[in-house]
Amino acid sequence: MAFLYKADPARGTQWAKLFAQKAPDLPFHIWPDLGDPAAIRYLAAWQPPEDPTRTFPNLEVVFSVGAGIDQFDLSGVPAHLPVVRMIEPGIIEGMVEYVTQAVLTIHRDLFDYDVQQRQRVWRELPLKAASERRIGVLGLGVLGTAVLERLRLFGFACAGWSRSPREIAGVDCHAGEGSLDGFLARTDILICLLPLTPATRGLLNAGLLAKLPRGASLIQTGRGPHLNQPDLLAALDSGHLRNAILDVTDPEPLPAGHPLWTHPQVRITPHIASATRPETAVEVVLENLRRHREGLPMLGQIDRTQGY
Amino acid sequence: MAFLYKADPARGTQWAKLFAQKAPDLPFHIWPDLGDPAAIRYLAAWQPPEDPTRTFPNLEVVFSVGAGIDQFDLSGVPAHLPVVRMIEPGIIEGMVEYVTQAVLTIHRDLFDYDVQQRQRVWRELPLKAASERRIGVLGLGVLGTAVLERLRLFGFACAGWSRSPREIAGVDCHAGEGSLDGFLARTDILICLLPLTPATRGLLNAGLLAKLPRGASLIQTGRGPHLNQPDLLAALDSGHLRNAILDVTDPEPLPAGHPLWTHPQVRITPHIASATRPETAVEVVLENLRRHREGLPMLGQIDRTQGY
Repeated sequence: MAFLYKADPARGTQWAKLFAQKAPDLPFHIWPDLGDPAAIRYLAAWQPPEDPTRTFPNLEVVFSVGAGIDQFDLSGVPAHLPVVRMIEPGIIEGMVEYVTQAVLTIHRDLFDYDVQQRQRVWRELPLKAASERRIGVLGLGVLGTAVLERLRLFGFACAGWSRSPREIAGVDCHAGEGSLDGFLARTDILICLLPLTPATRGLLNAGLLAKLPRGASLIQTGRGPHLNQPDLLAALDSGHLRNAILDVTDPEPLPAGHPLWTHPQVRITPHIASATRPETAVEVVLENLRRHREGLPMLGQIDRTQGY
Repeated sequence: MAFLYKADPARGTQWAKLFAQKAPDLPFHIWPDLGDPAAIRYLAAWQPPEDPTRTFPNLEVVFSVGAGIDQFDLSGVPAHLPVVRMIEPGIIEGMVEYVTQAVLTIHRDLFDYDVQQRQRVWRELPLKAASERRIGVLGLGVLGTAVLERLRLFGFACAGWSRSPREIAGVDCHAGEGSLDGFLARTDILICLLPLTPATRGLLNAGLLAKLPRGASLIQTGRGPHLNQPDLLAALDSGHLRNAILDVTDPEPLPAGHPLWTHPQVRITPHIASATRPETAVEVVLENLRRHREGLPMLGQIDRTQGY
């Protein structure tokens, strides 16, 4: 019985150390060192190898090392194998930090103050109370919920939208396609934290952006292919959108010649909002192995029919 | 019996409306319209007129419209007159927003990612957990306490320093001059929220900055004269300090030719971290008038011997 890690090798070394301390009886391999392929029961990967059960006939669980599994080719993973995405405190903490910083940057007019600094202009802009600023989060999974629970403390008017109904204290929760337009119409700062599925690919397009009030802003912390980038540029250039903060793009890395890099109303970071933290990730994986052995549902196990 | 307002006239108009609704029996004047000077019992000012009791012989209370009273010439205000600074929810909310944004900007390396964006470079920088980032707040009044209580929720290692002992749950509180060096030595991001007094003027100088660990950052949300600006520039240029976010400068406005404007490791905003919000400020003032009439201590009443 062995565990195979197939992702960033530097982080793999940290995982190996933590496994050696916390689960010394479970042999740990870092791809491409497979040991005996028949011994591999558990695989943690950013992208699993093609046809993993042919190489690893006794494979029992596939873990994603990321919060999403959209980078997985699930067609190669037999339907009976549980697939588990990464939900661990480090990922949540990073996302709450990133989105809070982005919301406050927009709320407190720091795009404009940055321009003023470059022009050496000392001028106070009108201040809006948080209660007058309407935040809307698309996607109410673990990350969307954690973000809203933190933003609420600042007094923002908080709402969320998800496919199926959710309840979050102090947050106006909308559910289903029929409620999307109303949710967008009341949103000044839209935050995308959706999973990437065939249903959400390209969702952030001209039609959706047009339903936001004039002067709204976008924080894109989902996956690059959620957003139609030419539509975003057009919405910014027409003045319909005020600004955008993007942590993900399509493709990644964003090519050096892409107009998003130099747009004055766009901030770009290289997919760093949140990362799996080995210390806490390994604890969650070990807890899931225990659950799996005892026949309990694992934390973050995905529904193969929904793709998240 | 009348109330006189002597500060920004646009905000004065908002105060007048709120007084008309909430205290219709109390005549409200906006400087320079004094009405009958002998009727003026209460004065709210950014800077009181010289020798106010000669003009207003029946003056009973002087309110500052700002959180500090360092802009007051207290020598002109007789010692028996209570002086009250502004502590109201709008000021606190604004400061918590500003400092949280500034801390997260530094913590999440957004100075560096901004440079990378201008160079069109897509490169992930090492991520530090909030628990490994040591925040230190100078000044544990209402604002410093509120800021620390919010930053704690992100998991930062939080400490504070004040002249007299304080206790804040989850915050390592240091008190008195003897503990200042130890507090500075453990602080990665230093936040100044001190009152400006003869004892704190120029406190942020080369000697103090040298006691911070190499690579530390400064968030200056106190008053301009707390900071020796040439000493800050030297500490940044030597690499001892990593960056600084300044909301206050000396003088204000900062002159267009000042080197702080263009320093790549400095962000400047024009004293906008926090502003008195008329709706909530007028409620606090009216509550204080009630307390004054009933002989109770007023919220924010300063100790003339300490100057804050």
